[in-house]
Amino acid sequence: MAEKVFLVIGAGAGIGGHAAMRFAQGGYHAVLARRSDEAGLAKLVDAIEEAGGMASGTLLDAAADGTIEELVERVERDIGPIHAVLYNLGAQIGSRTLADTPHRTFELGWRLGCFGLFRLAHALTPHMVARGSGTILVTSATAAVRGNAGQHSHAAAMGARRMLCQTLNAEFAPQGVHVAHVVVDGSVDAPDTLGKLLGDRFEGYKASKGDDGVVDPAALAETYWHLAHQPRNCWSHEVDVRPFTDVPWWNDNPNPGIDTRPK
Amino acid sequence: MAEKVFLVIGAGAGIGGHAAMRFAQGGYHAVLARRSDEAGLAKLVDAIEEAGGMASGTLLDAAADGTIEELVERVERDIGPIHAVLYNLGAQIGSRTLADTPHRTFELGWRLGCFGLFRLAHALTPHMVARGSGTILVTSATAAVRGNAGQHSHAAAMGARRMLCQTLNAEFAPQGVHVAHVVVDGSVDAPDTLGKLLGDRFEGYKASKGDDGVVDPAALAETYWHLAHQPRNCWSHEVDVRPFTDVPWWNDNPNPGIDTRPK
Amino acid sequence: MAEKVFLVIGAGAGIGGHAAMRFAQGGYHAVLARRSDEAGLAKLVDAIEEAGGMASGTLLDAAADGTIEELVERVERDIGPIHAVLYNLGAQIGSRTLADTPHRTFELGWRLGCFGLFRLAHALTPHMVARGSGTILVTSATAAVRGNAGQHSHAAAMGARRMLCQTLNAEFAPQGVHVAHVVVDGSVDAPDTLGKLLGDRFEGYKASKGDDGVVDPAALAETYWHLAHQPRNCWSHEVDVRPFTDVPWWNDNPNPGIDTRPK
Amino acid sequence: MAEKVFLVIGAGAGIGGHAAMRFAQGGYHAVLARRSDEAGLAKLVDAIEEAGGMASGTLLDAAADGTIEELVERVERDIGPIHAVLYNLGAQIGSRTLADTPHRTFELGWRLGCFGLFRLAHALTPHMVARGSGTILVTSATAAVRGNAGQHSHAAAMGARRMLCQTLNAEFAPQGVHVAHVVVDGSVDAPDTLGKLLGDRFEGYKASKGDDGVVDPAALAETYWHLAHQPRNCWSHEVDVRPFTDVPWWNDNPNPGIDTRPK
Repeated sequence: MAEKVFLVIGAGAGIGGHAAMRFAQGGYHAVLARRSDEAGLAKLVDAIEEAGGMASGTLLDAAADGTIEELVERVERDIGPIHAVLYNLGAQIGSRTLADTPHRTFELGWRLGCFGLFRLAHALTPHMVARGSGTILVTSATAAVRGNAGQHSHAAAMGARRMLCQTLNAEFAPQGVHVAHVVVDGSVDAPDTLGKLLGDRFEGYKASKGDDGVVDPAALAETYWHLAHQPRNCWSHEVDVRPFTDVPWWNDNPNPGIDTRPK
Repeated sequence: MAEKVFLVIGAGAGIGGHAAMRFAQGGYHAVLARRSDEAGLAKLVDAIEEAGGMASGTLLDAAADGTIEELVERVERDIGPIHAVLYNLGAQIGSRTLADTPHRTFELGWRLGCFGLFRLAHALTPHMVARGSGTILVTSATAAVRGNAGQHSHAAAMGARRMLCQTLNAEFAPQGVHVAHVVVDGSVDAPDTLGKLLGDRFEGYKASKGDDGVVDPAALAETYWHLAHQPRNCWSHEVDVRPFTDVPWWNDNPNPGIDTRPK
Repeated sequence: MAEKVFLVIGAGAGIGGHAAMRFAQGGYHAVLARRSDEAGLAKLVDAIEEAGGMASGTLLDAAADGTIEELVERVERDIGPIHAVLYNLGAQIGSRTLADTPHRTFELGWRLGCFGLFRLAHALTPHMVARGSGTILVTSATAAVRGNAGQHSHAAAMGARRMLCQTLNAEFAPQGVHVAHVVVDGSVDAPDTLGKLLGDRFEGYKASKGDDGVVDPAALAETYWHLAHQPRNCWSHEVDVRPFTDVPWWNDNPNPGIDTRPK
Repeated sequence: MAEKVFLVIGAGAGIGGHAAMRFAQGGYHAVLARRSDEAGLAKLVDAIEEAGGMASGTLLDAAADGTIEELVERVERDIGPIHAVLYNLGAQIGSRTLADTPHRTFELGWRLGCFGLFRLAHALTPHMVARGSGTILVTSATAAVRGNAGQHSHAAAMGARRMLCQTLNAEFAPQGVHVAHVVVDGSVDAPDTLGKLLGDRFEGYKASKGDDGVVDPAALAETYWHLAHQPRNCWSHEVDVRPFTDVPWWNDNPNPGIDTRPK
């Protein structure tokens, strides 16, 4: 049995894969779960093992009933105690008007973005509380703190998740479980998510952002590592990240419509 | 056909009933929809008519598929144009630990608190946009802005709804539809909701809060009226309300644990 | 002696003047205070009197020591009880880099934007508390909730003021004093402030915003009236306003840099 | 000349001293500045040197004109480039009613809490921008995000500072300067600040909070180190910290006044 497990729900080649690599390098057995593409999954597991770490991969249909629960129980039973988990799922579908957001889509956004985290917490917190410690990291989005046009499904799901992270933190932090909600306020160099959304425009997009213009998932993984190892007397619950050239969500674009500088 | 309709989704004797009365007194035909208790519904309709206003009542199972949509179409077709709607539903179930929050309960909270609003907006915004104007008022809760212990279902649903209100506002305000998210940060003198939750402790609770210690739903109705009639050059999107003696959600209790006053 | 006084600190022809007119029409004796332009002040007072209301005007150098205090005492003594006050001062100087923001400018922003409100509260709350009631309205800005580039002085002053409004509310709401912080998240048709900043570009700017594209100060005055007359069981502390076509501060521009709609 | 300097403005034995130790252990020359107690300062410097690091100490009256500016220039000229600075000053005076908050006290809170940071940024950003990189860390407080009763001076100063951190970030992040606003939402084991405020009640207070019940400044120093070394493609601007048993500022106390659990 592994001494400690790091479970990644949504382990693509971007954030999830890099987080798994980082925690494996730190001595965790990384369990990578993703919905499809076994070959891509195997690539990630192999890379970790080649670097000297321990890893396993498994396909997971997080939207289906019982799957997340079964995975948690299986890992706890067969691999080792899940000391830290990264919930790295969302359902960003691009910009759609309300009329173009089908009911089913709106619901799926909630199932993946929020309900899955609820189910994960249900399954895992009893284990973590019994051990008196644990970390639940959530890769979240700016949509959790403000709702842009065209983002009905995504923002509602993210807003739900953010409040759930607060209720989970309120109940479980005093019991030793660190819940951290990470607002990724910028594009990430993630081929399996943003890359898929943009298709062949991905490379050109990254080039247009300039050096260090998109989040390097290895850098975010380092921040996840830091959060998961903060002593319990100094825990952060909400952290934002963005590339240095990105305008924070709360700011206007640097070129507002009217020039108010004194002449 | 009525010149203008005010539709209340969730018309109990508290906020919904009083809002319906206020808008009816202002010349709207008030349509009151609630899940059960036809007698209570009839009482509200009668009170409005006795006061000289126009009103209709209808039972509505908002959680069931197609019901909200059917109601909107029926009202628009048979009664008149819905110039303003109040979404007054939630699913506050009291304080429950995560372990005591069944999956079905968590989902129902979302269906009533958020998905119902999404469905209402889907059905109603085409009408309002065609008319170039309309108001969507949402009675919301502090749980929309922070998640307390024991509030997993309610806070997640309210957080979702708050972000949905922002995405709806982003898409529809420029098209003339005023979306207002009202955070009721305090107890309301509402027999059908808080009264039901507290049972025979309700009167004693109100007495313990003192004069003006709970929100008078008639006062809130006045604020709803104001919001619904703000000229479109001066619209408020988010408004908080509370009794003057209530500690705002962002503050600590007035008696913090440690006395830091200089001796 | 007047039965009730509405004091406006910063009574230009825009927000302050219109608020004074509204309250005067509601039976208050409006006292208008501004830094300069006695002729403009007299025009506002005359307009109120011609409309049948009561008003007085006075010049006030709010940044100077003792002036706000003296004004409050003089009004309470000679005109009547100040039931409501509108603090309508700021020090928006346009967009300046840090290097172009002199220390003196930064400090003046704080003196007018925050310290003046502190002094006003010091002078006035004893009177309001003795009466068991009162309203302190503050015309604030988006800069109170987020700091844009070039806004060092203004945002710091507004951020200070917003927190001061919360501390004042925490101490005085239970004593019957309603403190309301109004975030004006858009341009106002105000010749003495925005008009002065833009000079001859003002009319063109308003035209470019389209019908109802800037806040009509008469509409905002109506919201101030509503806030000042909310029953104390249903008080709002923070309210935002903007024209329906303005993008709320929390949203991105409607034309984000990358088109993420599915093809 | 040192290769890189870490300047601490407000280097007491708690947060400032521990941060200085951590950065010195990471190869920085730590410059510790505090208002008084040269002996205490020397102790901190000695501890760093005994542990193998480089450090200097200097007295600094941050409220006085020109002092912060002179210090920055002196360090840049005589010791080395200030790659990172920690602004660790505030003016928490305990809980005071408005009537018991003298004007001078309110202003001093702003001078130390906000204006000092403005002056520091004025002096230091030209150097950091010329180098294309730098970090400005600010130890902040919950008072920056909400204003409790009795906190007029402190909250106004912290609210100002938070907005200033946003404007500084907006202007300088794209130029390579990382600005991070850290909300310390809990008590810190800091003898020179909280210890001084509580006097002989300090030890008893810490004991009453239980194990890991107050922030260990060494743990916070580790988070400061992490923030200062995030790659510029993944910068955090605002981070909260608290002990795991502390109730986050946004939550109610765990024992709300009314038991709403179903019977």
